[in-house]
Amino acid sequence: MKLSQRALEIQASPIRKLMPHAVAAKQRGTKVFHLNIGQPDIPTPHQMIEAYHSFSEKVLAYGPSQGLDVYRDGLVQYYARHNIPLQENQIIVTQAGSEAVTFAMMVVAEAGDEIIVPEPFYTNYNGFATMAGITIRPLLTVAEDGFQLPPNEAIEALIGPKTKAIMICNPGNPTGTVYTKEDIFRLGELAKRHGLYVISDEVYREFIYEGLSHTSMLQVPGLEEHAIVVDSVSKRYSACGARIGCIVSRNKELMAATLKFAQARLCPPTVDQLASLACVPLADDFFKPLIAEYQARRDLAYDALMKIPGMVCVKPQGAFYILVKLPVDDCEKFIIWMLDEFNIDNETVMGAPGEGFYATPGLGKNEMRLAYVLNEDELARAMSVFARGFEAYKNL
Amino acid sequence: MKLSQRALEIQASPIRKLMPHAVAAKQRGTKVFHLNIGQPDIPTPHQMIEAYHSFSEKVLAYGPSQGLDVYRDGLVQYYARHNIPLQENQIIVTQAGSEAVTFAMMVVAEAGDEIIVPEPFYTNYNGFATMAGITIRPLLTVAEDGFQLPPNEAIEALIGPKTKAIMICNPGNPTGTVYTKEDIFRLGELAKRHGLYVISDEVYREFIYEGLSHTSMLQVPGLEEHAIVVDSVSKRYSACGARIGCIVSRNKELMAATLKFAQARLCPPTVDQLASLACVPLADDFFKPLIAEYQARRDLAYDALMKIPGMVCVKPQGAFYILVKLPVDDCEKFIIWMLDEFNIDNETVMGAPGEGFYATPGLGKNEMRLAYVLNEDELARAMSVFARGFEAYKNL
Repeated sequence: MKLSQRALEIQASPIRKLMPHAVAAKQRGTKVFHLNIGQPDIPTPHQMIEAYHSFSEKVLAYGPSQGLDVYRDGLVQYYARHNIPLQENQIIVTQAGSEAVTFAMMVVAEAGDEIIVPEPFYTNYNGFATMAGITIRPLLTVAEDGFQLPPNEAIEALIGPKTKAIMICNPGNPTGTVYTKEDIFRLGELAKRHGLYVISDEVYREFIYEGLSHTSMLQVPGLEEHAIVVDSVSKRYSACGARIGCIVSRNKELMAATLKFAQARLCPPTVDQLASLACVPLADDFFKPLIAEYQARRDLAYDALMKIPGMVCVKPQGAFYILVKLPVDDCEKFIIWMLDEFNIDNETVMGAPGEGFYATPGLGKNEMRLAYVLNEDELARAMSVFARGFEAYKNL
Repeated sequence: MKLSQRALEIQASPIRKLMPHAVAAKQRGTKVFHLNIGQPDIPTPHQMIEAYHSFSEKVLAYGPSQGLDVYRDGLVQYYARHNIPLQENQIIVTQAGSEAVTFAMMVVAEAGDEIIVPEPFYTNYNGFATMAGITIRPLLTVAEDGFQLPPNEAIEALIGPKTKAIMICNPGNPTGTVYTKEDIFRLGELAKRHGLYVISDEVYREFIYEGLSHTSMLQVPGLEEHAIVVDSVSKRYSACGARIGCIVSRNKELMAATLKFAQARLCPPTVDQLASLACVPLADDFFKPLIAEYQARRDLAYDALMKIPGMVCVKPQGAFYILVKLPVDDCEKFIIWMLDEFNIDNETVMGAPGEGFYATPGLGKNEMRLAYVLNEDELARAMSVFARGFEAYKNL
């Protein structure tokens, strides 16, 4: 029995496909430090857990396809705090950021169309594009420039008749890059000039270090018809298991069409929306210590990597990932070896192979992504195990 | 700014698109009996609500892409009770039946491919197909035959080089038809002979009346490579807002490819899976009175319709819908009129226009679907309002 071409072509998640090796290691009694996945260890806010506990409807019924009104109201308040004035009907609640990305891609691009994405990029964009029959045209960014946006000429060189959108992730996964206001505005101008949409994945909006500030694509004047933001509660509130996100745009026709996609799958989960609503009031009191904690983790991880001879990486400005280039041929082999063959005092480390974060064949093979999502003690231990593992691997 | 062709083509949900008329009616103080949507009034089992209340993890973390092991274990037990022996790795938990249908369509068919579906069919299959670029080839079934499967010749006449699967809904939405064991086996043989997949939507498995029994596509011998079941907790446990379903197949390659789709969106919601797990032990004690209740509602709705001159419908054998043919040109107009213009003692009724349940242009325009999801008192009242509304409409 033949499967569809997209089923054959879709990549296994590089973040998750090596999990069987981790499971086997655990079965042998080895503790695995999971730096492969952006699963924070930060406790989910008690307000959110309490919201699950206080659900008291008799019938757990369908909600509106666009999300619960009360939650969309809450999101309007959330964005207003970030100086992004919105109305309720400019927001559709989705099943996490994943569905928001899928909807955004499908509403702007047909099978056979192209979307330009600076690479390296969040690996699952590949999966969503394959499912939708869309081609990602990678726009190479490099560590030497801090993975910042290339000049307009490089972007324009990729624009063709099938190009429908440019998609960015800001702050960036896996790069940790925060785009400057100038570059966001420049990208907006370029999109307007070429009649393209800009899809901006801003799920790490709050995770910005050293006092840098975030510019949303929704803050570019005159870009109302072009700008689409995808968002999620997963990282913001350490609520990856809630699967609540949203898609935001001021383009009325686009939102009307997106609602039709949303209607087909009926609605996002009800209780998880109420739980997400409980987090809306969380502001600086919650985020300031959280960001300080992540900044300390970033420093720890970065400093530890810098002490290992041959490692190349950029100090991230945001999100909670470091993309590191190793002096090896194939990082995936190294990661598997760490899980299958290596441990110190029954501890080992798992990273995510870099290749999956690129669309250009061959790139990223000697890179890996580490997520600094553990507390400082655990992370220090993990980085020490990583360093000693790499030392041993090099000497094989 | 242009939208994609699929964004322009995807139909607004006929079940949901008239909601603004219902909202307006409610704002005028009119009570609307919602027979348009399969939202049961049955209380969600207390076990499920309690599971939300007892979630006690510190971090609401990502789960496995294939679903929580403990829940997949539970599903194995659930299917075993229905004489469907399965292993855990033959089940992937999805974001409700909707995602299961999307995955099933995408894993078997490429953009441009075709899937044969007996019509009338669950309207949102259209939306999922449009998003995936797949063409639904409708296989007409008619009230005169109780909407049962046509003979093989009629099915085979639709099979071409692009046909990848036949998709059924059993018991049927919107028809209420329960396919016979003979027909399920016949369809299985036909699929084998032509090398096609059979996707079987069995979300109404328990909702079968008058002692009829259900035959799952997973029970056809020798169909292991062909059979795919999509399922959901929504109707079964009156938990439409939980958004938990699953896709089931014994075809290893197909499940491996489906897992890659599942990995792209990371995981289904965690707490909702635990809540669904709490329902797994529910067996005859729970379902027998529930089915008796629905059978009584069916009888009430059917008898009420039969008393209205000119109504044509088949007594449903399962699910909780009646598709009724009205002596009017355009049922959608009638439904809108009922919401906009009509009420008795400030009460009116909303149905779902039949046209959206057909892929063949022009069919279903004089039909509507009623969901008998209200208790007998409410339903009796609703049917009386419906009858008097129709009487008034006819005499306009």
